[in-house]
Amino acid sequence: RINGQRLWDSLMKMAQIGATDKGGCNRQALTDLDKQGRDLFVKWCEDAGCSVSVDEMGNIFARRPGNTPELPAVLTGSHLDTQPTGGKFDGVYGVLAGLEVVRALNDAGIATEAPLEVAVWTNEEGARFSPAMIGSGVWAGEFDLDYAYARADKEGKTFGNELARIGYKGEAPAKPRPLAAAFEVHIEQGPILEAEEKQIGVLSGVQGMNWYDLTLIGQPCHAGPSPMEIRRDPFMGLHKILDQLYKLAAEHGPWARATFGDIRVEPGSRNTVPEKLVLAVDLRHPDQQVLNSMDQRFREIAATVAEETGLEHDIRDEWRSPAVAFDKNCVEAVRTSVADLGYSNKEMVSGAGHDSVYISRVAPTSMIFVPCEKGLSHNEAENAEPKDLEAGANVLLHAMLKMAG
Amino acid sequence: RINGQRLWDSLMKMAQIGATDKGGCNRQALTDLDKQGRDLFVKWCEDAGCSVSVDEMGNIFARRPGNTPELPAVLTGSHLDTQPTGGKFDGVYGVLAGLEVVRALNDAGIATEAPLEVAVWTNEEGARFSPAMIGSGVWAGEFDLDYAYARADKEGKTFGNELARIGYKGEAPAKPRPLAAAFEVHIEQGPILEAEEKQIGVLSGVQGMNWYDLTLIGQPCHAGPSPMEIRRDPFMGLHKILDQLYKLAAEHGPWARATFGDIRVEPGSRNTVPEKLVLAVDLRHPDQQVLNSMDQRFREIAATVAEETGLEHDIRDEWRSPAVAFDKNCVEAVRTSVADLGYSNKEMVSGAGHDSVYISRVAPTSMIFVPCEKGLSHNEAENAEPKDLEAGANVLLHAMLKMAG
Ligand SMILES: NC(=O)NCCC(=O)O
Ligand SMILES: NC(=O)NCCC(=O)O
Repeated sequence: RINGQRLWDSLMKMAQIGATDKGGCNRQALTDLDKQGRDLFVKWCEDAGCSVSVDEMGNIFARRPGNTPELPAVLTGSHLDTQPTGGKFDGVYGVLAGLEVVRALNDAGIATEAPLEVAVWTNEEGARFSPAMIGSGVWAGEFDLDYAYARADKEGKTFGNELARIGYKGEAPAKPRPLAAAFEVHIEQGPILEAEEKQIGVLSGVQGMNWYDLTLIGQPCHAGPSPMEIRRDPFMGLHKILDQLYKLAAEHGPWARATFGDIRVEPGSRNTVPEKLVLAVDLRHPDQQVLNSMDQRFREIAATVAEETGLEHDIRDEWRSPAVAFDKNCVEAVRTSVADLGYSNKEMVSGAGHDSVYISRVAPTSMIFVPCEKGLSHNEAENAEPKDLEAGANVLLHAMLKMAG
Repeated sequence: RINGQRLWDSLMKMAQIGATDKGGCNRQALTDLDKQGRDLFVKWCEDAGCSVSVDEMGNIFARRPGNTPELPAVLTGSHLDTQPTGGKFDGVYGVLAGLEVVRALNDAGIATEAPLEVAVWTNEEGARFSPAMIGSGVWAGEFDLDYAYARADKEGKTFGNELARIGYKGEAPAKPRPLAAAFEVHIEQGPILEAEEKQIGVLSGVQGMNWYDLTLIGQPCHAGPSPMEIRRDPFMGLHKILDQLYKLAAEHGPWARATFGDIRVEPGSRNTVPEKLVLAVDLRHPDQQVLNSMDQRFREIAATVAEETGLEHDIRDEWRSPAVAFDKNCVEAVRTSVADLGYSNKEMVSGAGHDSVYISRVAPTSMIFVPCEKGLSHNEAENAEPKDLEAGANVLLHAMLKMAG
């Protein structure tokens, strides 16, 4: 068994780095605070006897040797970066649960056959640098390194420069080595486990998600003398598109999602009809077929509304992460670990993207969920119960041991 | 008669300061470019024999002496600042037409009984620093000097600091002296004169306008696992409010206006339902009673939608500029000048706010409009015909002479 108190204490210590007034955490990717969090993790891993390496994407790997060094490692991990309105558990829990597995094995004097690794993946949130999961994505071959380095935040600072600035641009190539298995434990970030009073989610996969930038272009004109009916006003298109996209999500059942997290306006002058609006659109569905048809309808809605309101429009595909099915053996390892430990559980699909999405392309992978309070995440009030976090880490320990021998 | 070619040449010269790729002008208030424009104007006035003074709001007054120095002056003028997507004529025309009146009188060797003044009012647009017409507003007693100095642009730079920085924080108190009359000539910024093929608009007043910041506050949550029906999403309120406000404008007839020039989002992360949206709302109507009822309905709509969508909301009154009726004698002076000169004309109300709104509180005031192409303003493509600009300046000359003797 892992040490639940030590895990909790480590989570609370890490949460001090970037702590917000409202009890959350704002430790965005490649900021000075991210560096502080990484430094603390590296120190803890070295104290636990791990050797630490950093790759050219800033992904950190802490390795606990196995009896048979040439065996492929069993990997776990998640991310330390947060949303601007982030909490104390999203990502961090998966990283520190991995560390706790190492510490617990050290305490018990247990050596595994295969080496174990705990990974920190860079910029999982996609909040500062879009898209999400770019550290694991480059590593797994989904994105080019140059593409990642060129990603810019809202101030125009690039990923590559910021990574170098905080001293985490490593030497190792961001490429996968053979792995026996990969597991990630995470808070659910949704309300299902809490509502159904289950302690562990056994994940069979991750839903599909598409990110877009929808641009609406009108004609700037004066707020006073310009008659309403001759205006080409991006807000006149925007409200119709929002309305129809919310309806689109409702029509596609309880699992469909439509989210608009960001909007930009040009020129942004109170008494001028805007020239341009750029809306960040996030559409999701667990069934890739359904997501594809939402994608199709989104394009039709935008084109029709733009036509009706005399606007030009453009849809830029920012990111596509198709629905994922996890490895049967890894899912089974989680399932039997949960059964061995006697925790209540539910088989489910993740609504959020996770590093495991990309890892699963190059290694047998699965995930473990624990409940979070009111299903609230990407919110400073994000919360989880120590006993659930402990249970999730115990499942992780058992699943890793099953695969590492 | 004024010299139309010289007026046009001066307009084109001034338009080089802040010229944009698309043929417009971006010379926002209290920027380095604004300073360059002011310097050029001051030089031209001094060359034309005027004495120039600057008040503590940065308003510039160029004075051409009269035969009877103790008589109250006849004033004209407008502004040199532009919108970010501004044109070459909005404001600038009124300033340079005033200068052209002085130059034409000099050429003709005509001395007036009363002194003449040409004013440049600071930050008329309200684009960089809200509200609009703040230079004339402080001067006329509508706003406190401290309030004006504390206004901040989007980067947090204050009006007071920026005014000092460009060297236009003058010594003279921003207070009105007695004036015999004030006139302002301006492009219409709307489509009426062009559509009705009239060369001159004889202005009887200015419509009422209200500016608000509407804030919608929801609950940030994750774009993936959070079910749509438990979200408190500011965009869910926004689209309903926009829809109803556009309908509100339509219900209040062809003169009602609803404009949304700016929007701000927090935290602005693609995969997080926003915590907050702040929408700039501009409502207008020439009939103050109707505007008041639009104001009332706006508050009801926002409250009802916020309630329905589980959002908190707040409406901050940013600015109110009630409908204005101009001075009967000044309007008559314009009317008879137009008749004397034989220009086609139309009596009308301004859809845009102008410095004359505030000047009219402390001096007999009226305005003259000339057509602008397709009614387009606050747009880089803003355009006006040299012959119309010449006609407007001739009307200004005659109206000023009538009042100055
Ligand atoms: N776990 C998490 O918050 N991931 C961010 C990627 C997403 O938007 O789902
Ligand atoms: N003339 C002009 O563009 N004024 C700005 C104030 C307003 O919004 O009407």
